[in-house]
Amino acid sequence: MKRAIVAMGGGPTRVINRSLFGIVDEAARNGVEVLAARHGITGVLKEDFVALTPGSPPVSTHAMLPGAMVGSTRHKPNQADCEKAFSVFRGQEAHYFFYIGGNDTAEATSIINREAKNAGYELRCFHCPKTIDNDLVESDHTPGYGSAARFVANALIGDELDVKSLPGIKIDIIMGRKAGWLTAATALGRRSEGDGPHLLYFPEFAKSLEDLIEEILSAYEKNGYAVAAVSEGLHGPDQVEFIASEFIRKELTREPYAPIMRTIEAMAGIEEATGGPKKDAFGNVQLSGTGTLADVLAAAVKIAGYKRYGKAVRCRADTFGYLQRSYAGDISPVDAEEAEMVGRAAVKLAVEEDTDGSVALRADRGGKYRSYTELVSLEAVAGKERTMPKEFFNDEGNGVTEAFVEYAKPIVGELAR
Amino acid sequence: MKRAIVAMGGGPTRVINRSLFGIVDEAARNGVEVLAARHGITGVLKEDFVALTPGSPPVSTHAMLPGAMVGSTRHKPNQADCEKAFSVFRGQEAHYFFYIGGNDTAEATSIINREAKNAGYELRCFHCPKTIDNDLVESDHTPGYGSAARFVANALIGDELDVKSLPGIKIDIIMGRKAGWLTAATALGRRSEGDGPHLLYFPEFAKSLEDLIEEILSAYEKNGYAVAAVSEGLHGPDQVEFIASEFIRKELTREPYAPIMRTIEAMAGIEEATGGPKKDAFGNVQLSGTGTLADVLAAAVKIAGYKRYGKAVRCRADTFGYLQRSYAGDISPVDAEEAEMVGRAAVKLAVEEDTDGSVALRADRGGKYRSYTELVSLEAVAGKERTMPKEFFNDEGNGVTEAFVEYAKPIVGELAR
Repeated sequence: MKRAIVAMGGGPTRVINRSLFGIVDEAARNGVEVLAARHGITGVLKEDFVALTPGSPPVSTHAMLPGAMVGSTRHKPNQADCEKAFSVFRGQEAHYFFYIGGNDTAEATSIINREAKNAGYELRCFHCPKTIDNDLVESDHTPGYGSAARFVANALIGDELDVKSLPGIKIDIIMGRKAGWLTAATALGRRSEGDGPHLLYFPEFAKSLEDLIEEILSAYEKNGYAVAAVSEGLHGPDQVEFIASEFIRKELTREPYAPIMRTIEAMAGIEEATGGPKKDAFGNVQLSGTGTLADVLAAAVKIAGYKRYGKAVRCRADTFGYLQRSYAGDISPVDAEEAEMVGRAAVKLAVEEDTDGSVALRADRGGKYRSYTELVSLEAVAGKERTMPKEFFNDEGNGVTEAFVEYAKPIVGELAR
Repeated sequence: MKRAIVAMGGGPTRVINRSLFGIVDEAARNGVEVLAARHGITGVLKEDFVALTPGSPPVSTHAMLPGAMVGSTRHKPNQADCEKAFSVFRGQEAHYFFYIGGNDTAEATSIINREAKNAGYELRCFHCPKTIDNDLVESDHTPGYGSAARFVANALIGDELDVKSLPGIKIDIIMGRKAGWLTAATALGRRSEGDGPHLLYFPEFAKSLEDLIEEILSAYEKNGYAVAAVSEGLHGPDQVEFIASEFIRKELTREPYAPIMRTIEAMAGIEEATGGPKKDAFGNVQLSGTGTLADVLAAAVKIAGYKRYGKAVRCRADTFGYLQRSYAGDISPVDAEEAEMVGRAAVKLAVEEDTDGSVALRADRGGKYRSYTELVSLEAVAGKERTMPKEFFNDEGNGVTEAFVEYAKPIVGELAR
């Protein structure tokens, strides 16, 4: 009996388990036994394995659910880890390794592959793509992105109608540290010109606090309400992430925004008391992964609005948070199918074609949307990042083009109407 | 031609437009013309009306979407407003009034009804129930609750699997100021005993910060991860909302939590600069409608965890926010149908039965779930609130019983599996 080891790395997606199902089911068809390492590469190092078959738990119970069914890890393996991993494979007499994850995971797979080659051990190594960030090179898009994009699109359809019902300003913070793919998807449900989200803020286009407030208040005055989708990776004019940006901090120190900066400074004491990451390069607290960006932006807009109009402005902010990658309902059917497809492709390429590599997801959009997989080398994907192409942004850098909508529509599936 | 005026009040739900569709369609069948007031009672007072028919926009385009399609209002009409409203009805020769909303809206409807009676003007007044809070008396449940409950249930299914993938502690803040109905619904997707959410915190059961942290860390130690769903309306032992509670503030002033209180104090300056509600009765800032409760709880758990284990604990918090009442996908089919049903019932009772009142939604759960409507008086519903009955809470007051699950299941529909 041939044996494969499979593992999952990085943040889970809503369809990552479909890829694992694809791998396990396709392996069974090819007479390959599958052992899953619990919590990614750390499970390999600890030899913490669980046997998987298509018809029994957790595969039978979790294939359609979010989260990594055999656990994941953020541990980035070093050279020694990879050597150890390879020796574990030898001990297990496993000649196939499938690692589901993003570009860091592709890099880990690449190193393990190289170690096996150096030692002359027969091992087919495959990276199976997954990330809500949609930032893998060589692929048209990435399994996991379609469902995350669908979530933010359906969220903004409802959110803009809710804000319009009781007019005010709404700010939504969207995942995406380095690329605006997910923030862009918030615009997919717009039915006509005046509909929100009226403004999109991407990591790719830096903003001053002053410009951001001016644009939001202008949209509010023009439409009677305003909805802005802001990427968590938005940068200040010094190209540093918004709240950490020295430029933005200077703006926040000026009146009337000074109370915001005093609050941020008080927060530094909290971080120190948690044993978490201490102060950043600027001697200030890191505020990622909390509701702080949302609260700071809402406070700044309210303060500026009060100054301009002489009365309180209704402004609310939501941080969509982990729901974007984990909400269990309303998954994109195309995304789920493609996640399974890349898993099956990895097994076919490894077992039938006897190759190593990564699976790229490609698509034809000429007529009816059609996606397919192609083999790419591990080195082509490992550690690389893909940002959004220029033609997907509007001229002002605060919205998307029709070209983006055409690109993303088939991936997210039919939205609420 | 008979004429009706319809309006929407309070926070929108994901299915409020289905009730309006029900009213408009049933009115058309009964030869009644419908004028909608924009933004509820304020539209009546300004005589800002739009004619609605079932087959044309906005009814034809928005019936299946969230948000109040003709706008809503939080304006609570006073006696003078109600008198003015009644005189507008007279001017429009409208002899039917339908007001979709919660208990405040029922109260407004009741006053208008009384004014019309006093003046001898023939007016059939109906309140049509709507609220995600599920807190209307006389009803088994309220249109809008089922879809909000479905959202938090599917959210927690995914969230608990996500947290389990990369173990740590997760805290989710759920809507519900005075009753725990929505927080209770986070437990509906649990498949087995050890599954999250492991702890539920309701407005009905007060907590000290110390007990809350102790319970969360214990669950974390027992399960290897912990997920807690916390109602935004959680109270401190002095029965004041958590962050505003003097008891909790005293706990936050003590080491090691003092940095949190210093941050909250700094926030007071922000509120003052926004022209918003100033300080609360305790001389401190009101922090509702922001990510503050989530961030404070996560900080407190992280600080306590660091003190106990000597290393940083992974703890994240999300505030689900407006998505709970506005997410456009994954609406409960039963909830949507019932929302339409109460709208139709209001028209039938007013036009065919020639009565005033409110529509109560009742349900039989003996065999196959079946819901139906009944006429109740406006006075029976107006201004009253329904909290969760005792038999729906576990003995510790931090979870729900099987009786609650049986109650809520048919309303939310089939969850992710």
